[in-house]
Amino acid sequence: MGKTEQTEKEKKIDKKNDKKADKKLDKKIEKKTDKKIEKKPLIKKPDLSKPRMERTEIVKKLETKLNPKRFVHTIGVEYTAANLAFVHGADVEKARLAGLLHDCAKYIPTDEKLKRAKKYGIKPSKFEKANPDLIHGKLGAYMAKDKYGVDDPEILSAITYHTTGHPDMSLLDKIIFVADYIEPNRKLIRDLPEIRREAYLDLDKCIVHILKNTLEYLKTTDAAIDELTQETYDFYVKKLTK
Amino acid sequence: MGKTEQTEKEKKIDKKNDKKADKKLDKKIEKKTDKKIEKKPLIKKPDLSKPRMERTEIVKKLETKLNPKRFVHTIGVEYTAANLAFVHGADVEKARLAGLLHDCAKYIPTDEKLKRAKKYGIKPSKFEKANPDLIHGKLGAYMAKDKYGVDDPEILSAITYHTTGHPDMSLLDKIIFVADYIEPNRKLIRDLPEIRREAYLDLDKCIVHILKNTLEYLKTTDAAIDELTQETYDFYVKKLTK
Repeated sequence: MGKTEQTEKEKKIDKKNDKKADKKLDKKIEKKTDKKIEKKPLIKKPDLSKPRMERTEIVKKLETKLNPKRFVHTIGVEYTAANLAFVHGADVEKARLAGLLHDCAKYIPTDEKLKRAKKYGIKPSKFEKANPDLIHGKLGAYMAKDKYGVDDPEILSAITYHTTGHPDMSLLDKIIFVADYIEPNRKLIRDLPEIRREAYLDLDKCIVHILKNTLEYLKTTDAAIDELTQETYDFYVKKLTK
Repeated sequence: MGKTEQTEKEKKIDKKNDKKADKKLDKKIEKKTDKKIEKKPLIKKPDLSKPRMERTEIVKKLETKLNPKRFVHTIGVEYTAANLAFVHGADVEKARLAGLLHDCAKYIPTDEKLKRAKKYGIKPSKFEKANPDLIHGKLGAYMAKDKYGVDDPEILSAITYHTTGHPDMSLLDKIIFVADYIEPNRKLIRDLPEIRREAYLDLDKCIVHILKNTLEYLKTTDAAIDELTQETYDFYVKKLTK
């Protein structure tokens, strides 16, 4: 589920741009990777033949895949995650890598996302079947492993849950979830200056604030709400009031 | 005065790379701008014929001027400054712009820096005459105005003093001074994790910590120490112990 207001509003424009920019590229990738992926539908073990890429290489690759706006957002998330890691004592390099790759599957056209997920052995929920864009977190984690050689489970978890969050998140999960919402390129939606301060002062309070505003906003639209978003909100409200 | 250990250590390599990469480019600029600059040695009034560039345009231009390592550092400073602005209540867009442009004059070869400064009407101190690289902050502020259309005095001040600091800095001055030292691409020099946390928790304490380590480090080398660095340190030590 798209969690920010601007994401929802700009979804249509974004999708259109994505399709144009990525259609050609995507077909090429599809052709190249189809056979390879079919042979290994469940990527569970790290593929040692594909060592983790250097940052420069990852950035170059992302720049060819993502549209310019999403690429700039991605770098904003990377550095915001690193700064949150400074303060909350997380691993800075893991935060950067998870930030860089959190949207690595978002460029894939909506109607291709489920196909691609199937190839990785991801079983979409009913909700994801009805809203294929919402699978980009899970798909991103598989692609981070397959295309960028990242096999660290903490990083892959943070990519998987960056949009919905989940109850009892790890520190890295929280950092990527929050960085995605607050990074400096985001439009100034409701309460953002306050949420940005909370991100550094009280991470759980910040998460509740983000989820509260997201749920409230989504209820004013026709957008579907992933039940995990509500569960995450309920979990952290309970945690804060304990 | 270079304020970090890695800056000092890598100075020679950096200079060599800079010279190679920028010599050709620099000569071209020199030829083009010589006449124009001589006609207006003191740029005091904003040049309304040159509106401020958009970020995308600034980033593109910086990428052609700076070597890849310094370009990556520059983006790191931009986003770190923005995040510090979130927490300390500074103007986020000004922090980004000052971060982006803080090193915009650093690519100019050492032996050209004083010439270029003279053209802008900057009178170098004795110390700067002996250590021309240390004028890159002042020169950067003039170039930010002349080449990038930035005339905001707060931004120009933050660029001017980003290496030495100065007694009684503005919030933006402090943010750029600190962001330059802590941004995520910096090598893990002494106390850096602690200094990074202090940057968000207590900006003045962080500044004292940076200056203390810088002065201590520089005293172990042959590097010249700008007296403004010592003055800034003394000012903030006094302020903290009041």
